Formats: sequence, C-alpha cells, structure tokens
Amino acid sequence: MRKTRKNRNTPELIIKKSLEMFNKQGERNVTTNHIAQQLDLSTGNLYYHYGSKDEIILELARRYTNEFNEIIQRSISNSVEFGSIIQLLEDIIGLRWEYRFIMHGKFGMFPFNENIKSTYFATEHSNIELPASRFFQKLYDFGIFNIQQQDLDLLARQFSLLQEAWLSMQILNMPTRPSTEIISAGRHYMLKFIYPTLNKEWQCKCDSVFLAEPPSTATLFTSPQ
Amino acid sequence: MRKTRKNRNTPELIIKKSLEMFNKQGERNVTTNHIAQQLDLSTGNLYYHYGSKDEIILELARRYTNEFNEIIQRSISNSVEFGSIIQLLEDIIGLRWEYRFIMHGKFGMFPFNENIKSTYFATEHSNIELPASRFFQKLYDFGIFNIQQQDLDLLARQFSLLQEAWLSMQILNMPTRPSTEIISAGRHYMLKFIYPTLNKEWQCKCDSVFLAEPPSTATLFTSPQ
Repeated sequence: MRKTRKNRNTPELIIKKSLEMFNKQGERNVTTNHIAQQLDLSTGNLYYHYGSKDEIILELARRYTNEFNEIIQRSISNSVEFGSIIQLLEDIIGLRWEYRFIMHGKFGMFPFNENIKSTYFATEHSNIELPASRFFQKLYDFGIFNIQQQDLDLLARQFSLLQEAWLSMQILNMPTRPSTEIISAGRHYMLKFIYPTLNKEWQCKCDSVFLAEPPSTATLFTSPQ
Repeated sequence: MRKTRKNRNTPELIIKKSLEMFNKQGERNVTTNHIAQQLDLSTGNLYYHYGSKDEIILELARRYTNEFNEIIQRSISNSVEFGSIIQLLEDIIGLRWEYRFIMHGKFGMFPFNENIKSTYFATEHSNIELPASRFFQKLYDFGIFNIQQQDLDLLARQFSLLQEAWLSMQILNMPTRPSTEIISAGRHYMLKFIYPTLNKEWQCKCDSVFLAEPPSTATLFTSPQ
C-alpha cells in the first residue's frame, strides 16, 4: 500500500525526482506515473501538486532560467577579469548540465508543444538572452573582442547555441557523466570557439589555460568516437 | 474501404510521406497509423514494407547521410574557389532543411533509442564527419584559414554542430518556411561564424557577400523575437 508520509515536502520531492529521471532517461520516456511510482506516491497525490507533466517541466524551466539570470547578474556587477570569466563559464556549464533535459527539450520537445514553447521562451528571453547579451556588451566595451559591434549580438547567441548543442551531444556519450568532467571539457570547448574573436592579450590568457590543462580530443568532440 | 492501388511504388510513397509528416508535426507526434492513414493504406500493408517506425527513420537517415557524402565528395574533387564553397554551403543547408526532423532527432530522440542511435551515428561518422573533415583539411592546405592545424578538426565539428542547432531552432519559428529563405539566412549565419578564422583575403570575399545582401537580424537569430 502506498502512503504519503507527513512532514515531507512533496512538491519539492516531485521536482527533484522529475529532474533526475528526465536527465537520465529522457523526458519523453518518463510519465507522471513513473515519477509517482519512484516516490511511492499515488498518481492522484502527484496531480494534486502538479496538474500535468507539462507543469513539472515548466517549474523546472523556470528554476533553470532564474538561476541562469542570477549567475550572469552577479558577473555583470563584477570587474572584468579573466579568472572571473572562466568562473562564470564554469558556473553556466554546470547549471546547464544540471538541467540538461531542457537542452534536449529545446531542440526536440518544445517546438511541438505550444504551451511549453511559448512559456519557456518568454522566460528564456528575459532571463538568459538579454542578460547574456548585456554581459557580452560589457566585455566588448572593455575591449577584449577583435570584432565589430554589429556582430556582437550574433556572437553571443552563437556562443549560447553551440554550448547547448554541445551539451546535448554529451548526453549521447554519457548521460550520467560527472559534472566536473563536463565543466572542464566544456570550458575548453567554448574557449576554443571564442578564441579567434579575442584580442591578442586575451588569446594569450587562453593559451596559458590550454597549456596548463591540454584539452583531450575525446572530451572535446561531440559524437561517439 | 481502403485499397492499395497497383502500379504505385508503396515503399517510396511511405518514405516521402513520413519525411513530410515528421518535418511538419515532429517525429514524436507521428505514428505508423497516421502515416498509413494519410496514404490510404492499411497498417498491415505499411508493416509489410517497414516493420516499424524505427525502420522508416533509419531509411531516411541513410538517404540523408548518403546524399550529404555525395555533395561533399563532389566538392572535394573541385578546385578551391569562393563561389563553389558558397554553393556547397547552400547545398548542405538545403539538404539539412529537407531532412530537418533528423536534426531534432539527433538532439532529442536518438540519445534514448539505442537502435537508431548506434545505426545513425555509424553512418553519420563515415558519411558526414569524415568527408567534412577532409574538406576542411583541403581548405586548410589551400591556406584560407588563419588557425593552427591542431584546431582544424574542432572547427569542422563546431561548424557542423552549430549548423544543425541553428536549423533546429529555425523549426521553432517556422517549420514550413521555404527552403530558399533558410538557405540564404543559413549561408550568412555560417559565414559569420567562420569569419574570424579566415585569412584577410577570404574575409574580404565574405565582406562582399554581406554588403551585397545584408543579413537581416530577424532571419539570423535563432529564437522567436
């Protein structure tokens, strides 16, 4: 017999378990029944807190975009230093890996679900795209880029899209890979992407990162070898 | 009463209709029943030709990677000219748009379907990645890149991944958009990506493309505005 215990925060448990299962098995293979089962809940109890799988997905997407925004906002208020930019990059990759089913969803699930699509992208625009764009503008004003102002916004968006796509492909290789490995490989991958757009001084800073910790081909590449 | 007419090439009709429906509605929303219905076939007749939806997907993936390979092989045997590289870029983007459900699948569907995952990536590796990598090597040997040899393979793969991810995002905006528009926007998007890695001469060639036909912000960006 299933019973919900008192004193446990059921909505929070549902959210945590859903994230874990979506990441591991793929959102499309996980139903609300599976989630309830794993938590030893009745499906009715789950529906009492979240009316549908979509509602769980939207709550996770809301948390993800809010956390993303907070990380960037903190960085915008700091001074521009190489070390703190590497830290920002690592924080973002770590967060994206934590919510990695959303990267898949963005390419595969959201486009055909009008409810998730419109709600998610409204949040993404204000909590990810705009702050990221402001952060790239700050770097540009500081003079680290060797590109034209008119290409800055495109660079910011390509940076973001490539990071998401790369993470999506990593799930192919090892969905349960430790986040420390992903963060280290992702840092190299994204520095290599941005390298040709940097001024000489910042290219040297990147070179010293590559020298100290040479990126392994196996971790950089995106498809199964 | 449903009847299959004689004289029609049923397997070919199934493939064409499946591609059309996968692209338009998303592969996950299309069942073999839907496909049979649209073709006025019995489900049994469909299963006589293709034992499952996976078999249809794999046949489409096989055609896509073969055509991709052929386009690149043709280009490898030509001399290196700016015009023919633009042509190659347009051909590839056009082909990818024609089979766009596969881009979605790669990020969203394949990772959790072992059968499709292993079969697709074996073909992708030999028919897309290796030829693309050889083509980038040819461009490098010709001297158009201002990067180091050791970064060439990474550039080729980033180029490919970004192209796929960008196309995936275009489906969000308009899955039925005419391929001519996509090809034109995609050409600009990918030239902008590769621009900082090119030597001065080839940057000038790109500049003249941008001048003649300025990329519109709306078509370049990936998310709904």
